[in-house]
Amino acid sequence: MRITLIGSGNVATHLGAAFRNAGHQLVQVYSRNAQHAALLAYHIKAEPISSLNAISPETDLFVIAVKDDAIAEIAEQLAVYDKLIVHTSGATSLSVLELFTDKAGVFYPLQTFSKNKSIDFNTVPICIEGTDEQSTKQLIELAWTVSQNVYRVDSEKRKILHLAAVFACNFPNYLYQAAGAILAENQLDFNLLRPLIAETAAKVQEQLPEQVQTGPAIRNDINTMQAHLQLLEQHPDLKQVYSLLSQLIIKMNNSTDAGA
Amino acid sequence: MRITLIGSGNVATHLGAAFRNAGHQLVQVYSRNAQHAALLAYHIKAEPISSLNAISPETDLFVIAVKDDAIAEIAEQLAVYDKLIVHTSGATSLSVLELFTDKAGVFYPLQTFSKNKSIDFNTVPICIEGTDEQSTKQLIELAWTVSQNVYRVDSEKRKILHLAAVFACNFPNYLYQAAGAILAENQLDFNLLRPLIAETAAKVQEQLPEQVQTGPAIRNDINTMQAHLQLLEQHPDLKQVYSLLSQLIIKMNNSTDAGA
Repeated sequence: MRITLIGSGNVATHLGAAFRNAGHQLVQVYSRNAQHAALLAYHIKAEPISSLNAISPETDLFVIAVKDDAIAEIAEQLAVYDKLIVHTSGATSLSVLELFTDKAGVFYPLQTFSKNKSIDFNTVPICIEGTDEQSTKQLIELAWTVSQNVYRVDSEKRKILHLAAVFACNFPNYLYQAAGAILAENQLDFNLLRPLIAETAAKVQEQLPEQVQTGPAIRNDINTMQAHLQLLEQHPDLKQVYSLLSQLIIKMNNSTDAGA
Repeated sequence: MRITLIGSGNVATHLGAAFRNAGHQLVQVYSRNAQHAALLAYHIKAEPISSLNAISPETDLFVIAVKDDAIAEIAEQLAVYDKLIVHTSGATSLSVLELFTDKAGVFYPLQTFSKNKSIDFNTVPICIEGTDEQSTKQLIELAWTVSQNVYRVDSEKRKILHLAAVFACNFPNYLYQAAGAILAENQLDFNLLRPLIAETAAKVQEQLPEQVQTGPAIRNDINTMQAHLQLLEQHPDLKQVYSLLSQLIIKMNNSTDAGA
């Protein structure tokens, strides 16, 4: 497929590489920032452009991977070319492309992408939605070329997924950071926690989190929890996090017991 | 080394297997529950016992891996044998073994252990503390036989580590569970989140969490955060978690900016 990328951020970068690896032709990369466009375009052998006036009509698909609030306006400007057009946002409804009654959709890769960290795209769940059956089918076929996990997900469910992803990714990463801050303050190295973090995530690859919870809260070990809260005396924010999450672990466990 | 295990829970089970794999002789496994003792003893080729009266003095080391509040009493009962004795608790000070002026210590594997999930013990950080230099040295040598990550950590720092581990493991696992609950309620499969969870943990193996944070809070994307809070209207607990953690991500990011 001939693909034009609109955007040069983390999603555009990783998606561009995945399309390229799958043998698709990346026609152009657009970014307002010419340097960003040039850098990504170089990696995926596309033409960099920094003005939408320079868009080539010789493409099959526009992939809009920009900030959520910029999607609608860019889509509007691309409508004239009458090509298949998708956005990649988990939080944004298909209806943002309301201009299009067909030939439009969503291509949402459910993963956390960072610069300087390559990814096995093959395992990334791709959530597809189309304005019409033909577009949906085309997008699903495209998705299969880059991943083994392709799902059809409508806008409502995609919002739920995006919310769940915040709990599964952004919040845990914040807690890793909090743990690292606690260690650093005591001249302890973050390396000490890395195997624990890896294993915590590895455990839920086969089992469910409720089957593998450990720690003082699930044991209702009040002495340890009180000692931890004392250690956090100088960190009211983290103390609040500790209290809230411990309470909820205890509560969830009790309600599970009651149901079992 | 000849090792006697006191306890048959997750830590005793994984530690017993690691000692056995490293070529040590497991002499006895004690558990009040005879069946638990028998099961673990069978796996690591030790003698099961369910009474401390049956302890054999033909051992070099007692490893006490029981609930924190039972350590002191058991240690007291084992004092008569005059052997090296350790507990394995992150939250418990060495001083719980106050009876011992020497030949005692702590052997704390910083990992989350669950039944039915084997572990590469080689990467598990082992935190060692001894009452005296000779015991410390012996324990460090023992630790090196099962892991490549051996640290000397005193009781005060071990408590800090244990606290940080709650943030890095128990709380993220709770958030995985919360994410799973949100999905289940909407007939979405937990499988959709597994690659994301794995990658979130994989990212911080090489980088620091503050370098790889993604999501609406770090972008200060107020529209998305408000939409998420609305989706959580029926879940006051999760709404509270979402608000608190998002606020702290925004706050931590601002303070990092200010310092940069």
